[in-house]
Amino acid sequence: MLWRAPELPHEPAPVSRVRLQALEVLVEIELATICGSDVHTSRGRRAASTPLILGHEQLGRIVAVGSGAPRAADGALLAIGDRILWSIAASCGVCDRCAVGLTQKCRGLRKYGHERFQDEWSLSGGFATHAHLLAGTPIVRLPETVPAAVLAPVSCGTATAWAALAAAERMHRSVAATAFVSGAGLIGLTLTAMASDRGIRVVVADPDPTRRQLALRFGAAASYNPLAGPAERQRAVDAAGAEDGFDVVVEASGAREAVAGAVAAAAVGGVIVLVGSVFPTEPVPVDAEQIVRRLITVTGVHNYTADDLVNATAYILERWSSHPFTELVGDTVVLADLDEGIRRSGPGGPVRVAVDPRR
Amino acid sequence: MLWRAPELPHEPAPVSRVRLQALEVLVEIELATICGSDVHTSRGRRAASTPLILGHEQLGRIVAVGSGAPRAADGALLAIGDRILWSIAASCGVCDRCAVGLTQKCRGLRKYGHERFQDEWSLSGGFATHAHLLAGTPIVRLPETVPAAVLAPVSCGTATAWAALAAAERMHRSVAATAFVSGAGLIGLTLTAMASDRGIRVVVADPDPTRRQLALRFGAAASYNPLAGPAERQRAVDAAGAEDGFDVVVEASGAREAVAGAVAAAAVGGVIVLVGSVFPTEPVPVDAEQIVRRLITVTGVHNYTADDLVNATAYILERWSSHPFTELVGDTVVLADLDEGIRRSGPGGPVRVAVDPRR
Repeated sequence: MLWRAPELPHEPAPVSRVRLQALEVLVEIELATICGSDVHTSRGRRAASTPLILGHEQLGRIVAVGSGAPRAADGALLAIGDRILWSIAASCGVCDRCAVGLTQKCRGLRKYGHERFQDEWSLSGGFATHAHLLAGTPIVRLPETVPAAVLAPVSCGTATAWAALAAAERMHRSVAATAFVSGAGLIGLTLTAMASDRGIRVVVADPDPTRRQLALRFGAAASYNPLAGPAERQRAVDAAGAEDGFDVVVEASGAREAVAGAVAAAAVGGVIVLVGSVFPTEPVPVDAEQIVRRLITVTGVHNYTADDLVNATAYILERWSSHPFTELVGDTVVLADLDEGIRRSGPGGPVRVAVDPRR
Repeated sequence: MLWRAPELPHEPAPVSRVRLQALEVLVEIELATICGSDVHTSRGRRAASTPLILGHEQLGRIVAVGSGAPRAADGALLAIGDRILWSIAASCGVCDRCAVGLTQKCRGLRKYGHERFQDEWSLSGGFATHAHLLAGTPIVRLPETVPAAVLAPVSCGTATAWAALAAAERMHRSVAATAFVSGAGLIGLTLTAMASDRGIRVVVADPDPTRRQLALRFGAAASYNPLAGPAERQRAVDAAGAEDGFDVVVEASGAREAVAGAVAAAAVGGVIVLVGSVFPTEPVPVDAEQIVRRLITVTGVHNYTADDLVNATAYILERWSSHPFTELVGDTVVLADLDEGIRRSGPGGPVRVAVDPRR
């Protein structure tokens, strides 16, 4: 489904032939989910090279394999019939950034669902019947028994949630006991589950009462409405025993007020992970003296590495039925109804709307 | 020398008797230096409990030792006659913050040169003939051969510079090749020496031409005036080969514009250490999207741990004559002339004015 410009409907674009290069793989897509950034892009709020196939959260089954014996991230040979998911991007593996582990910022990065539709790589996005996976794309094999709806978001939201929690744990000088999550979207809810599974007491803030309820079912000790008064916030903070501030603050909403409030929410020595600020806002006012005197660390997370994808997938395979992950996909449309699916993905809608290209 | 309030001169305050508790030490001060924060406090720009003895950069010789066999940070027994320097603060070692290594934010922190003059602990500051060191104070023994002028600043500026560089190296995912330092005061210059000794190409920004020259002699690859145009900045960046941004940015000036510019100066994956923002300013505008998309980490450093003090002292003992450390103390006054020394410590003055209580 080709997207040309804001306000224009998607158009079916037949691709008659894909030429696989060495180490490449062709996948028949089983299910894709519509990420918030697809919604933003299709409404013209993010720059994009058009025409393109959107979608970067999906899973599928291998239908063709290029020469050179392509392998999964765990080293296993890939074969026709394998059920897999793949990273949001392919990295070169040899540039200076890849060399230091910043593969998500590779100098030659090619990003699924973000690149202009063109002859040598037309099938990059998830809103299609098939996807063409490039060499340098981390791929993870999947069991048949786990529902597609909990696996499709792994290649964006779930892996980013893992990367955010991993960054917080790497930078915090001890084991975190409390965490504050602003924004109960897919990243915030998934991170709440991951953190509460580790025994961290999590407080979630979101203006949407449905999301706040969902956060409690994902393991949050408390949730509150950030637009309500300080008393509601204080009750949530007390419930988590975080009167002294939170060890970890994850800002997953991108809202300017939430980013501005992160420093005050963190404890002495706390770590703030910014993960939601993926669209332009006015500059955020920050109290530099508080960052210094309270030894606070702020770190940005955007996308993730192959390890994060592997670990996030393992987490979902183990824990998908222990939290209400199956409820995150609230609606499924067929590929021809993609525009309707994007329309339903707006504020107040389900956390994810899925696109089924096989129905 | 007792300080009572801004605009009032220091007054000599005889202390006839000090009662040493277990693990405490009495020191005859050999030399103290006047830190920028002493200047700020004495001009009323920082809150302080008065009356107090200012000064927290000094060294001295042990003249009395309490019971219980007090030891240096390296475990050696301390004895009368030992030449030593000591930390800016005593920590309890048992609270939750000390337990996770945040000794500089101990719940029972007692800070030299910052506490109200009172019976049980009158001699806390460096602008005195003697200092009374509490249990829980990291102490480092010194050889006789190294000049007092390069040792006195270790317990504040030098150890903080070490802590800032250590934080940057701990948080950076690879070996840093380039660093940008804003503010060529004692911290900025010392950090420039430490970083250039590691092979890091350092660029220093400071409005004062004398400081910019000094930065080059401390190992900077280039220095420039941040108030000059972008061409001067670009020449300095090119000289360090940092066209893509700096791996490490150390903001040591506290100037709001410098803090605001730190994100733009950092490379993808770069680490920003804020160390100069120890006084209130208007909130600093920050582009959160850049922190996220460019995977930037911002961390605050305030004071330091015992390890930082030990490592900073070892650095100075080894490298004091390889950089112009002896020139940082540009002037020395006697204790009775402390107010004159503070007056000379203002903008345009030497990096440090020393106070000699023995002359």
